[in-house]
Amino acid sequence: MYEARDRSGRKPILAFAYDPSLTRGIYSDAALARLHSLCDIPDVKPIHGFEDEDNRALLAEVSILATGWGCPRLDSSALRAMPQLSMVAHGAGTVKSFIAPAIYEAGITVTNAVAANAVPVAEFTLASILLANKRVLFLRDLYRQTREALHRHPVMESTLGNYRKTIGIVGASHIGRLVLELLRPFDFSVLLADPYLSPDAARHLGARLVPLEELLAQSHVVSLHAPALASTRHMIDARRLALLRDGATFINTARGSLVDQDALTAELVAGRIDAVIDVTEPEVLPAASPLYDLPNVLLTPHIAGAVGGERERLGDMAVDEIERFVTGQPLRHAIDPALLEKIA
Amino acid sequence: MYEARDRSGRKPILAFAYDPSLTRGIYSDAALARLHSLCDIPDVKPIHGFEDEDNRALLAEVSILATGWGCPRLDSSALRAMPQLSMVAHGAGTVKSFIAPAIYEAGITVTNAVAANAVPVAEFTLASILLANKRVLFLRDLYRQTREALHRHPVMESTLGNYRKTIGIVGASHIGRLVLELLRPFDFSVLLADPYLSPDAARHLGARLVPLEELLAQSHVVSLHAPALASTRHMIDARRLALLRDGATFINTARGSLVDQDALTAELVAGRIDAVIDVTEPEVLPAASPLYDLPNVLLTPHIAGAVGGERERLGDMAVDEIERFVTGQPLRHAIDPALLEKIA
Repeated sequence: MYEARDRSGRKPILAFAYDPSLTRGIYSDAALARLHSLCDIPDVKPIHGFEDEDNRALLAEVSILATGWGCPRLDSSALRAMPQLSMVAHGAGTVKSFIAPAIYEAGITVTNAVAANAVPVAEFTLASILLANKRVLFLRDLYRQTREALHRHPVMESTLGNYRKTIGIVGASHIGRLVLELLRPFDFSVLLADPYLSPDAARHLGARLVPLEELLAQSHVVSLHAPALASTRHMIDARRLALLRDGATFINTARGSLVDQDALTAELVAGRIDAVIDVTEPEVLPAASPLYDLPNVLLTPHIAGAVGGERERLGDMAVDEIERFVTGQPLRHAIDPALLEKIA
Repeated sequence: MYEARDRSGRKPILAFAYDPSLTRGIYSDAALARLHSLCDIPDVKPIHGFEDEDNRALLAEVSILATGWGCPRLDSSALRAMPQLSMVAHGAGTVKSFIAPAIYEAGITVTNAVAANAVPVAEFTLASILLANKRVLFLRDLYRQTREALHRHPVMESTLGNYRKTIGIVGASHIGRLVLELLRPFDFSVLLADPYLSPDAARHLGARLVPLEELLAQSHVVSLHAPALASTRHMIDARRLALLRDGATFINTARGSLVDQDALTAELVAGRIDAVIDVTEPEVLPAASPLYDLPNVLLTPHIAGAVGGERERLGDMAVDEIERFVTGQPLRHAIDPALLEKIA
């Protein structure tokens, strides 16, 4: 492996900053071995606070921070403790919660692993779409109940299946774009609603740009990939849910706050539509919520994103970015501070 | 649309042959309109028997048969009734059950829609693999039972998820190859077992060729795509099932006869592995089968293949082949009689 050294022959000094109880399994042994070959790592123990006396000597010379969930806030006072800091590689999703504008203003390169977290969400979404159009979970339940041949059952009518169905993607976010990419091999018409996109850009992504209302009314499956912002709170409200076709499937792997959950629950209790719901408000639903038991709802406990071994993809992506940074190659996931307000 | 005519300016004469009660929805209105523009269709009503007096005049001049499920047997006596026959386009899967060797010996072109039936099976398989590695149905059930946050539950260990998992595909059939194609965008190591394939050919398909036993022992998900032949009956027996890793998922969308169902049921009742089972022996399981209720089994009533609107893909593919035949383009799905014994 390439060994990066500055003119004095020294490798850049790297430190970790995250909450180990949240970050288990992100930096695998293989990822750590790669980092050791690229950087000097005086201490593999993650830093708990940038004002700690204990860490003062290390912080004074650190140039690269490999961060993860629970990283302490990076602001101008943290910068004073790390005068050599040139890169923050975040082995997780959004950095908004802990990176202050001062970091970007100081010209420090920030990368995140939003793209790595997008992968499992897009995979979960694709699988959910393919099973929804075939009504696989409904047919499993029906077969359990009847224990009879079902090929002449009314559900086997011409609307069943994945051939030439219309899929609506709400939001050309990292995840939304990856879902669009994964949908390409299939015989779908894909609609896309996004306030920042041109029709041409949508066409490049394999979709037809339409207003959100038209998307909701035309799609057999609607999947939500918009960012959770003040302006998107309850963007899917009772009026918009009512636009969905009878028998449509609504998928939310984004954030519970995007949806008027009471209105969605009412549609699902009525049985008019199906849903795949991985995120809710609050995140563990009250025990009495009907969403737990409805047969037309696949309710999961916020697992669409990186879980288990999928966390290693986050660390691997941070290490890939550190390798590019140290060896002078262009980064793939550097954050453009000008775009911060549009993203989650 | 191009209108095909012979030197006398006449279009080829086409007839249908299938059991309408089995074939509902295969030839859509759009497909019929295309056929009418390519061929003369004296009667859209399908032929019930090639020895029928009623059909004698039509059969005497028919050159193309568009067939479907329930087509009467095509043998030398049928050939005598159809001296002009030059093509049979089957809008369904295997043709072995009704096309006798005499048809191939007479030089008649036969095409089928095995490739169209492969598409929904491959889609169902892909979706099942993506959900199995994340244990989505298990986590749904667990969330229903506990109604608690699960991110610190033991199931969230490092083996959960789709990152760098090993997928084993048994059989480089039409469906097996399409599954291999669909698996390409994901971070999987793919193993393939097939007695007719070279390691190089497997590599071209994106997989590593290994013996079946090695595939069973190493894969996190095993999906069966071998043909149902006398020689493959119970190819997955108790000894081979015992090779599967604890927690592996076994997927059968091929045929029930390929698996020793009692042995599979024993492994599933023990809870050692998970399964997605779309085909069984007999095809509707006895009402007392434990497979209906086991939480670690996704049992479906033979729906992985073309159902509902997916049947139109079969007819569309037959019409595409007829169009190529009539306009002199090379066919994509012509059957090579020399390969008949290797395929289902």
